[in-house]
Amino acid sequence: MVRSGEKMRLGAFLSVPGHHVASWRYPDAATDQLLDFELYKRIAQIAERGKFDMVFFADILAAAAKNDAQITHMVNTRFDPMTLLPAMAAATDKIGLAATVSTTYNEPYHVARKFSTLDHISKGRAAWNLVTSSNEDEAFNFSKDNHLLHELRYQRAGEFVDVVTGLWDSWEDDALVMDKESGIFAEKEKLHVLDYKGTHFAVRGPLNVARPPQGHPVVVQAGSSEDGKELAARTADVVFTAWQTLEEAKGFYDDLKGRLKQYGRSPESLKIMPGVFPIIGQTEAEAKQKAELLRNLIPPAAGVGLLSRMIGVDLSKYPLDEPLPELPSEDAINGGKSRHSLLKNLAKREGLTIRQLYQRIAGARGHREILGTPTQIADQLEAWFHAGAADGFNIMPPYFPGGLEDFVELVIPELQNRGLFRTDYEGNTLRENLGLSRSPNQFAKDSSHVI
Amino acid sequence: MVRSGEKMRLGAFLSVPGHHVASWRYPDAATDQLLDFELYKRIAQIAERGKFDMVFFADILAAAAKNDAQITHMVNTRFDPMTLLPAMAAATDKIGLAATVSTTYNEPYHVARKFSTLDHISKGRAAWNLVTSSNEDEAFNFSKDNHLLHELRYQRAGEFVDVVTGLWDSWEDDALVMDKESGIFAEKEKLHVLDYKGTHFAVRGPLNVARPPQGHPVVVQAGSSEDGKELAARTADVVFTAWQTLEEAKGFYDDLKGRLKQYGRSPESLKIMPGVFPIIGQTEAEAKQKAELLRNLIPPAAGVGLLSRMIGVDLSKYPLDEPLPELPSEDAINGGKSRHSLLKNLAKREGLTIRQLYQRIAGARGHREILGTPTQIADQLEAWFHAGAADGFNIMPPYFPGGLEDFVELVIPELQNRGLFRTDYEGNTLRENLGLSRSPNQFAKDSSHVI
Repeated sequence: MVRSGEKMRLGAFLSVPGHHVASWRYPDAATDQLLDFELYKRIAQIAERGKFDMVFFADILAAAAKNDAQITHMVNTRFDPMTLLPAMAAATDKIGLAATVSTTYNEPYHVARKFSTLDHISKGRAAWNLVTSSNEDEAFNFSKDNHLLHELRYQRAGEFVDVVTGLWDSWEDDALVMDKESGIFAEKEKLHVLDYKGTHFAVRGPLNVARPPQGHPVVVQAGSSEDGKELAARTADVVFTAWQTLEEAKGFYDDLKGRLKQYGRSPESLKIMPGVFPIIGQTEAEAKQKAELLRNLIPPAAGVGLLSRMIGVDLSKYPLDEPLPELPSEDAINGGKSRHSLLKNLAKREGLTIRQLYQRIAGARGHREILGTPTQIADQLEAWFHAGAADGFNIMPPYFPGGLEDFVELVIPELQNRGLFRTDYEGNTLRENLGLSRSPNQFAKDSSHVI
Repeated sequence: MVRSGEKMRLGAFLSVPGHHVASWRYPDAATDQLLDFELYKRIAQIAERGKFDMVFFADILAAAAKNDAQITHMVNTRFDPMTLLPAMAAATDKIGLAATVSTTYNEPYHVARKFSTLDHISKGRAAWNLVTSSNEDEAFNFSKDNHLLHELRYQRAGEFVDVVTGLWDSWEDDALVMDKESGIFAEKEKLHVLDYKGTHFAVRGPLNVARPPQGHPVVVQAGSSEDGKELAARTADVVFTAWQTLEEAKGFYDDLKGRLKQYGRSPESLKIMPGVFPIIGQTEAEAKQKAELLRNLIPPAAGVGLLSRMIGVDLSKYPLDEPLPELPSEDAINGGKSRHSLLKNLAKREGLTIRQLYQRIAGARGHREILGTPTQIADQLEAWFHAGAADGFNIMPPYFPGGLEDFVELVIPELQNRGLFRTDYEGNTLRENLGLSRSPNQFAKDSSHVI
């Protein structure tokens, strides 16, 4: 695969104080600032200094309620991303701002409005990571007895994204005239009532916010089930994903890109960015020491708790130093299907015990862990990029802000020297920086507004 | 009523580019910056320079869809307040940040989490204006055929606020230990599962955000129906309200304060702040000219449209220069009952035609309009304050930012000279500045955390 002149996309995946389950115990982690916005502001500014395309927050709509190990030993408090991002927008100028919002426990009118407002506030830097939620605990916080079944969640998500994009098109780009003299505020022919009626939603519209600067804020997705891939091929601009090997990643990449044509889309219109958990040392030995320190900081009860949650099966009764017990097939798991299989396959392939498996996923949580010097890390990113397994990467620092700072100061210059990454932002909006075209308005008659 | 040493509370009620229906046409209104966050930031900083207790956004979850006059001549786009406020928090230090969020079209888990996050980000400056929504159009944007009936809305609101405050108490103030050495992140005895089961909601909890700095963010309400007054007496910290005459305002004030005792609350624990629409001139003649200019800028179709919406009856077919036709009784109106009666009574009392009535409410929308020199305006505020008809006021400038700047530069110094308003913030949190105590945690056993 030739990528002459093409640059890698980079996301800074934020999980404060770090992506590793024990990162909050790591000496350099700013754990004491966990509730202080100054830390989040500083992190956003470090990522912007590094010319990252975007910062990104995952999200879960629940705290551990019953699992003692998780409550006692793990970080169990996280700010609402859609409340954090506007404040980070006010403290930055160029970097994209991506937040996870679930289609299962939200209403599309709110979601369309919040991302439109964020896009205006940030002058075109908003991105919505659409998830359908995989955590059954969330249902209990939203007056539901059960988590919606996988197939229904995706059906709802498909309608949800159609309503949201339809609402973003309520106003044509030039609908607001605001002519004080004539008293014409808006041209009524350029305001469109959606009148959506589906199985899950009936939404009249129009949205009460003018069209977002990007047309549509960037839509990110991360599902890698069949339903997830089809939804992404039809509606996503960016896909985050988790793969351990180049072969798997390349297979997913080709599969997903191959699905775009049926929706009239070019391969370039969707960017695929696997997650990467980098442990950076000035020497390989130093990187290994950091990894060892993080591993040793994991309380075993917390490690087993994390693994149980991720694999969808309670493993707390099994011996730590034996292989995984016989587990149900992916079909029996409601939510996080691909994560379940990934972990099972990893344990089998490498013959890992439960302890080894939780140590392995305690940082990257199924994403690829790469360890070494800045050169070694750049080599690995370059290999996947040039093999056509990734358009870029979602970087998951083990601890904040130091882990992100190391990446910005040590790895990014190496990528820039190789011509693999920008030395300055190409544009002002996230779409411009990602190399994505501005979204046309589905209701506009005048094609000059369709860029 | 003696208020020796007690200060007036002031809110800056933000409606950009102004509170008057024609304010966007006013020469000094920053209409061209309507979609630019820099304007909102500047407004927040002006209000903070004036030592306002808080800035406040109303909200409606719908745009005009079918009313041509409204679409053509009125401002029909407004940012989501909960996306604006975090960005304004990042640009200010002391001022409170209040946003309207409807209990009819939201889920309490989201609302608890967003206000808790805003409270953390702003270090204790968040306030939630709880409304039940009075605009039927909102229902159609949330997959509903009808707007929920008034009584059910208030029943739902009562449960909603109990769930939200219960979720805010999920964590005790000192639950997070975050001891890197021992590996104890949190004390599990200090995390509480809500397990709320009501008619409208079943919410397990706990909230996944540590306890807000204020304990509970400030709860604001504005309902003045019987249901609204009872809910406020039980759960509100601040009540916004709209009255034309001192007698009405005083009656409401005494009524509401009188209801507090049955809930074990003191009169000081609830602050009542009527809205005031000030037109300020260096001379009375100048103020009158401003008012006249605003009136003349109202397109008649827009004036009738606004009045129809506020009174809950379509008036577009009636002659402009005749009195109101016979209207249904308040009981037949679902939503905005008290506003409906207020307008009907105003028209009757003063013998106003439809045109005169819409001109009257085109600015203040049923709130009290005061016009004059800074001294005259201060006199009127002082009169209500000293008569015990108000603990303070929610100031509604006719246009932004100039109308707010005039209030800050001309009226506030006059109030300060009279000893009626602070010359600097008393505390760091909104509760401290409003003179409200920090909320105790309903689940905490150790009373030392109850301040």
